[in-house]
Amino acid sequence: MRPTFWRGKPGRSKLIDPNDVGFNRRAMLGLGAALTGTLALGRNAALAQSEGASPPADAPWSQSQGSGVVDRPYGRPADFEAGVIRRNIPWLTATSESSASFTPLQDLHGIITPNGLFFERHHSGRADIDPSQHRLMIHGMVERPLLLSLQDIQRFPQVSRTHFIECSANGGMHWRSSQLNSLQFAHGMIGCAEWTGVRLSTLLEEVGIRKEARWVMVEGADGAHMNRSLPLEKCLDDCLVVYAQNGEALRPEQGYPLRLVVPGWEGSVSIKWLRRIKLGDRPWHSREETAKYTDLMPDGTARGFSFLMEAKSVITFPCPEKPLSGAGLYEIRGLAWTGNGKVKRVDVSMDGGITWQSVRLHEPVLSKALTRFTLPWRWDGKPALLQSRAIDETGYVQPTIAALRKRRGSNSVYHNDSIQTWQLKADGSVFDVQLG
Amino acid sequence: MRPTFWRGKPGRSKLIDPNDVGFNRRAMLGLGAALTGTLALGRNAALAQSEGASPPADAPWSQSQGSGVVDRPYGRPADFEAGVIRRNIPWLTATSESSASFTPLQDLHGIITPNGLFFERHHSGRADIDPSQHRLMIHGMVERPLLLSLQDIQRFPQVSRTHFIECSANGGMHWRSSQLNSLQFAHGMIGCAEWTGVRLSTLLEEVGIRKEARWVMVEGADGAHMNRSLPLEKCLDDCLVVYAQNGEALRPEQGYPLRLVVPGWEGSVSIKWLRRIKLGDRPWHSREETAKYTDLMPDGTARGFSFLMEAKSVITFPCPEKPLSGAGLYEIRGLAWTGNGKVKRVDVSMDGGITWQSVRLHEPVLSKALTRFTLPWRWDGKPALLQSRAIDETGYVQPTIAALRKRRGSNSVYHNDSIQTWQLKADGSVFDVQLG
Repeated sequence: MRPTFWRGKPGRSKLIDPNDVGFNRRAMLGLGAALTGTLALGRNAALAQSEGASPPADAPWSQSQGSGVVDRPYGRPADFEAGVIRRNIPWLTATSESSASFTPLQDLHGIITPNGLFFERHHSGRADIDPSQHRLMIHGMVERPLLLSLQDIQRFPQVSRTHFIECSANGGMHWRSSQLNSLQFAHGMIGCAEWTGVRLSTLLEEVGIRKEARWVMVEGADGAHMNRSLPLEKCLDDCLVVYAQNGEALRPEQGYPLRLVVPGWEGSVSIKWLRRIKLGDRPWHSREETAKYTDLMPDGTARGFSFLMEAKSVITFPCPEKPLSGAGLYEIRGLAWTGNGKVKRVDVSMDGGITWQSVRLHEPVLSKALTRFTLPWRWDGKPALLQSRAIDETGYVQPTIAALRKRRGSNSVYHNDSIQTWQLKADGSVFDVQLG
Repeated sequence: MRPTFWRGKPGRSKLIDPNDVGFNRRAMLGLGAALTGTLALGRNAALAQSEGASPPADAPWSQSQGSGVVDRPYGRPADFEAGVIRRNIPWLTATSESSASFTPLQDLHGIITPNGLFFERHHSGRADIDPSQHRLMIHGMVERPLLLSLQDIQRFPQVSRTHFIECSANGGMHWRSSQLNSLQFAHGMIGCAEWTGVRLSTLLEEVGIRKEARWVMVEGADGAHMNRSLPLEKCLDDCLVVYAQNGEALRPEQGYPLRLVVPGWEGSVSIKWLRRIKLGDRPWHSREETAKYTDLMPDGTARGFSFLMEAKSVITFPCPEKPLSGAGLYEIRGLAWTGNGKVKRVDVSMDGGITWQSVRLHEPVLSKALTRFTLPWRWDGKPALLQSRAIDETGYVQPTIAALRKRRGSNSVYHNDSIQTWQLKADGSVFDVQLG
C-alpha cells in the first residue's frame, strides 16, 4: 500500500488517542525522563509502510528547481511565518514613538531571541543614525576625557556575552489584575542575545577614573536624550558597550551603532544609541529615574534606583496563543531568568501552587541569560492551573502576586516578577488568571 | 572649549601615532593581557573636555522623534549595513540554483551567525515549502514506520544545541593554490547557530530500530531530492531533526520547515527540507556520495564517506576585507572549530609559522561550535605573515597546506582544513598567500 504521504488533510494535524497509533513505552526515555507513554501523533502517523515502501509522492517543490543563492543576499523568514512578529498594544501609549513592541515568546525556541523579533521600547522613537557621524563622549570626573568614533571603540579588546534584557514594566499590567490572555503581551518585553563589544570598565580605565567619582550618567542620541544614572561599581563590574547583537551589527531599534548593556538590570538603563558617559559623585535624578522608573509604595514613598530584575519564569507552552489539542502526553516548556546570576531550579505546579515538581533545566545555564526548562506531562483532559517558579543561585524564590502585593502594594508599574498562572480548560484553551 | 563632537571629519577615523594622544599603560590590563601600550585612537579622541564640558551637539536624529514601534514588526539591519550580505561567486557554478553563497565572516562578531547571513548551499535551489503539507517518513528496517507532520515532531521532547555547519568544500579552491583575497570567499561556507528540534535518536526509538539496521538514508524534499547515507551509530549519537535556528523557525534556505543537523560532519549530510529517513544494512552509494563528496587521492582511489570536519581556524581580523590602518596596537581576532568536539588551544604566528604563541579562547567553548579567539598585538608596520592553527581535544593539530597535500595530493575539492596565511603588507593591506 502506498503511504498517504501527500494525501493527508492539509493544515493542522488532528490529534488522536495514543491507543489508536500504538503505544511505545520506550519513547523519549533517552532524555532520562520517567515517562509512562508516548505522544499522541497525527492521524497519518504510523501509516508509512515498512522497508519496501515507495518514497513519498512529490509535492510541487520537489518537482522543480527552487530559487538561486543570489535571490536573498540577506535572508528573511518563510512567508508562512508572517504571523510571527513583534506586536504592540495600541491603547497602551499615546503614540507609537514612545511605546513598546513585544517579543512573540510563544513562537520561539531555545534561548536566543532573533534580532528581528527582539522587543522594542523607545522613548522618542527609533533613531536612525549614520555610524560615521556617531561619537561617544566620556567625560566628567575623569583624567583624560575622550571622544570616540565607532572605529575607535571597535579597536578595544572585544568580549561577547549572552544576556537577557527585560523592560522593568514587563508584566506591569498584572499589578492591577489586567487579564491579558497572551504570553506575548504579558511577558514579551524580554529578549536574550549574544552581545559583542567592549567592557565599559576598559573604556573607563582608558579615560582614568578620578577618585571622587561614584556615579555614571549614560545618555542616548535619540530625540529623548534618554539618560540614566548608574553606580560606578556596576559599571566596573559587568557592563558592556556593544556594537553587535547575535553576530551582526545592532539593529537600529536596538541602538545602532552603539548601546550599553547592563546585565541583569532593568532594560531602561541599557541605553541605546549611546553617545555620552559622564562620571560624577552622585546620581543625576533625571526624568526617567524620578517621574518614571520608580516604584510607588503603599506608604506613598517611591522606591528609586530599583535596578535589579529578580528571578522570574513563565511557561511558554501551553499558553493562550498555543492551546492543547486534547488529552495526552505533552512537553511543558518555559523560560526562566534572574538578574542575580544563574537560575538554580525551576518548579512547576499543575494545581495552582499546591504541589510542585522540579523540572529539567537545559544547558547551557548562563548567568543573567534566559534558561530553557521542560517537563513531560500527561494531561488527563481536566481543568488545571499551570504555574512555574524560578529559584536563583542566591536563594531568591519567585513570589506569588499576592506575596509581592503584600510587600509593595499595587501602585507599581515596574518589577512584577510574580508567578504566572495559566488556567487550562477542558477544551485545551489557556487563560491568564490571578489566584486570590 | 566646545568639544568637536559633530565637527569631526565624517567617515573613517584617521589613525595617528599613539604618542599623539598620550599613552595609558593601564589600558586593557583588565583583560589580563600583558600589554605595553594603548590603542591608536581616532583623531578626535582625547579632545573631549573635562567635567564642565557641554553635552555633545545634537545631530539631526537627536533633534526629532524617530520611527514608532509599528514600523518594523519584523526588523532588518540598518541601511548603512547594506554591504553586509551573503555573496556568491558567479563563475564557480553553472547556475545560481546549484550553487553556494558565503557568510561575511569579516563583518561578524561572537560565535552566533545571524540567520540572514548564514551561508547557503543548494543542489537544486531553495525549496519554498508549505509546512502544513510537509511530512517526514521514517521507514525501512524499523518496527513501526511513521509519517510525521511538523506538529507531530514539535511534540517530541525538545533540545537546543549550538553547532557549526561547514560545507566540506569550504576552502576547496585553495587545494589548487587559488588566491581568493577574501575571507568571505575563502572561508565563508560556515555558520554557527542555536538549533532546536528533537534528537534523531528519539524518533528512531519511536519507530523501533530492527537489529539488522546499520545505515540511515536521509533525503530532502527539494528538486534534487538531495540524499546521503549515514552510519546508524552517528544518528543515535548527536544528530538532531530541527525546526528552529537561533530561536525562530528555520529560514527557507536553511531547510524550512525541517532539516537534519549532523554535528561536526560535512554540511552536505545535514539534509535540508528533510522528508525521509530510511534505515538499511548498508550505505546507498547515492550520487552525492559517489560522483560528489569523495576525495580523489594521489593513487587514483577515492576516499568516500569522509564525513568528519577536522580542526580548523582562521584569523578574521585583519583579513583582506579588513586591512590595518598603520602601525599600532591591535586585537587580532579569529574563529576556530573542530568536528571532533571542543577546541583545546589556538596558536597564532606572525612570521609564517616559524614562531607561535597561544591565544585566549573566549567562553563559552562549546563542542562542535565556533570558538572565538583574540590576541593583542602591536604591529610595527613591517610586512608580516599571519597564521592561526587550532588544536582540538583529541590532540589533532590543524595542518599546513603542504602537509595536507603530502597526505592527500591536490586533486581534492573537499576537507581542506589547512592553515590560512594572510600576508600583511607595510601599507596595512592583507593578501591570501600560500607558503611553499
